[in-house]
Amino acid sequence: MPRAVADVVLPDLYCPLESAIHRHVRDVDARAVEWIRGSGMCASSHEEAWVVATHSTDFYARFAPVADDDRLLATSLWVYWGFAFDDARCDNGPLSRRPAEFNALAGRVQRAAEAPSAADGGERFVGPLQDIVGRFRSFGSPTQVRRFTEAHRAWLSGVCWQIGNQAADRMPELDEYLAMRLLASGGEPTFAMLELATGLEVPQAELSRPVVRALTEMAILVAALDNDRHSLRKEVSRGHADQNIYSVLMHHRDLSLQEAVEAATCVRDRVLTRFLQVHDRVRPRAGVELSSYLQGLRYGIRGNAEWGLRVPRYLSLGHVPDPMDEAPLAWAEAPADGRSEPLPAAPSLAWWWDDHLF
Amino acid sequence: MPRAVADVVLPDLYCPLESAIHRHVRDVDARAVEWIRGSGMCASSHEEAWVVATHSTDFYARFAPVADDDRLLATSLWVYWGFAFDDARCDNGPLSRRPAEFNALAGRVQRAAEAPSAADGGERFVGPLQDIVGRFRSFGSPTQVRRFTEAHRAWLSGVCWQIGNQAADRMPELDEYLAMRLLASGGEPTFAMLELATGLEVPQAELSRPVVRALTEMAILVAALDNDRHSLRKEVSRGHADQNIYSVLMHHRDLSLQEAVEAATCVRDRVLTRFLQVHDRVRPRAGVELSSYLQGLRYGIRGNAEWGLRVPRYLSLGHVPDPMDEAPLAWAEAPADGRSEPLPAAPSLAWWWDDHLF
Repeated sequence: MPRAVADVVLPDLYCPLESAIHRHVRDVDARAVEWIRGSGMCASSHEEAWVVATHSTDFYARFAPVADDDRLLATSLWVYWGFAFDDARCDNGPLSRRPAEFNALAGRVQRAAEAPSAADGGERFVGPLQDIVGRFRSFGSPTQVRRFTEAHRAWLSGVCWQIGNQAADRMPELDEYLAMRLLASGGEPTFAMLELATGLEVPQAELSRPVVRALTEMAILVAALDNDRHSLRKEVSRGHADQNIYSVLMHHRDLSLQEAVEAATCVRDRVLTRFLQVHDRVRPRAGVELSSYLQGLRYGIRGNAEWGLRVPRYLSLGHVPDPMDEAPLAWAEAPADGRSEPLPAAPSLAWWWDDHLF
Repeated sequence: MPRAVADVVLPDLYCPLESAIHRHVRDVDARAVEWIRGSGMCASSHEEAWVVATHSTDFYARFAPVADDDRLLATSLWVYWGFAFDDARCDNGPLSRRPAEFNALAGRVQRAAEAPSAADGGERFVGPLQDIVGRFRSFGSPTQVRRFTEAHRAWLSGVCWQIGNQAADRMPELDEYLAMRLLASGGEPTFAMLELATGLEVPQAELSRPVVRALTEMAILVAALDNDRHSLRKEVSRGHADQNIYSVLMHHRDLSLQEAVEAATCVRDRVLTRFLQVHDRVRPRAGVELSSYLQGLRYGIRGNAEWGLRVPRYLSLGHVPDPMDEAPLAWAEAPADGRSEPLPAAPSLAWWWDDHLF
């Protein structure tokens, strides 16, 4: 996507959802930064500065505004860890085009999350991950931890897919991109941590319901597409021609960047419209645990947008991260596409619009 | 592993577990073979003959001797499908050394299992898989289906790992091999189908208990190592130098094939010893669903061994598969290594021996 981005108009986000943030976010973040410094997962002070500049506690404090401090700390640490791992090993590192090597690394890292006895094998990201999952085990139920580790595998499987496409110089079509992005965005483990943060465990029979899966996936996709938007300028400024919603649409539909931005906004808004519609059907009959989980999906979509519009991870184009932006945010009043039919050309997602989903 | 295998002595298997088989295995298999012929998943009659010769109904009829016929059919179909996919796309096909392409295929196949609306994209294995998972949805609970699809992802993640190692000409060390084989063997979805076959759903809190996960993983590993044994002659006869327990031990410990066979038998028997010990602590206090599941693990270990010692998939060295072998089986009286300490040099598995597992 090596085209001029300065002139592109990014429309305001449509996001009619509640905004909230944990009241101890600053204190907890101070503890998180201290942990990062002692964790050994950053190879240099430069890498550490960029990890700290992800403001991951600010991020997760918006997902889980009512968590105990220790739970907010542990879940925020995983977000920090995930961004650090992503930057060093997935998106930009030497493995970002080496699927054979990355598959093995993903396997080892995943096993370390599951098996407390697993050895680090010289990989600096393993020990810190085991520390974090050990915290989850200390306050979470085995079911909550298991849900997290399964979600963690889903994320890594998506990263393997993405790295494979990069290595093969293969730009996926829209349907494949959306199915891949659902996984590679990291939304699965991020939302699986809601239960660890609140302590409220959704009964398995409710969590497995297709309609609850659909809501989870829709929340993940909206947040993932918002992150494509947030990182657009940065990716272009770095000369990345990576897979994102814009490059996919430009490549396969012969659109300009501005046209792709508009088409992507319609995709994202149509998914959010369906999320809201389905949510409103499910929520009134949800028990307290499911209700808390669904609220977490709402907080997460909104919180991810608020964080992403301000975070230096996406905004700072220089060598050193700027402070967090504090400009007021503007929001769209209406969706760019509020139709309630299934997204065209995306059969992998079409079941979200099934009538018998309820 | 290009060394003479004819002189190698394979010791009898130690397997003090119940043997059983579904009484309608022949009728159900006839229906399965009819399904295969109409499924479109085989590219030639030669491929079809080898798929049929996996005798997958015989295999799963030993795992689930008390299932309803329709449930035995659907679960056996997945086993047939898995072997067909494995042979055409994983172990031997053109993708077996192309991780970038395989990662994308795995992603698409996995999405097809999860999303009934997903399109096949011209991949002949997608439609038949969707047919099978559709059967699971028709008689299984959403939780049982979800457990299966998560296990399916775990399997594919292991195949990605294996294919990556093949592509990089990388022979993993023992610890990595065992962690990878736990996934790549397909044991996760195979055992996840126990609930679909019997209809008995283990409460999530019980299934998530580390001790139940450990028992599941141990059962998977014993069966996987038995399959390494069963396929040894075939792999050598085909000139494969693939990753298996023998090639790993020979490569990294400078053992002869005979020495590697003996060392691998000790690894496998020590894991089975621990399985038996842990099982006997857990089983007496298990509820009816968990008890059925644990019995399924026992049936599975035993049934996989009985099937693997006779199936033409492993025994037939010619171009055309022979009939199923019917020779009586001999079993070892005692484990080659019955020590109850953790396996050395395998930290990924060491937690199975934790005292506080119970």
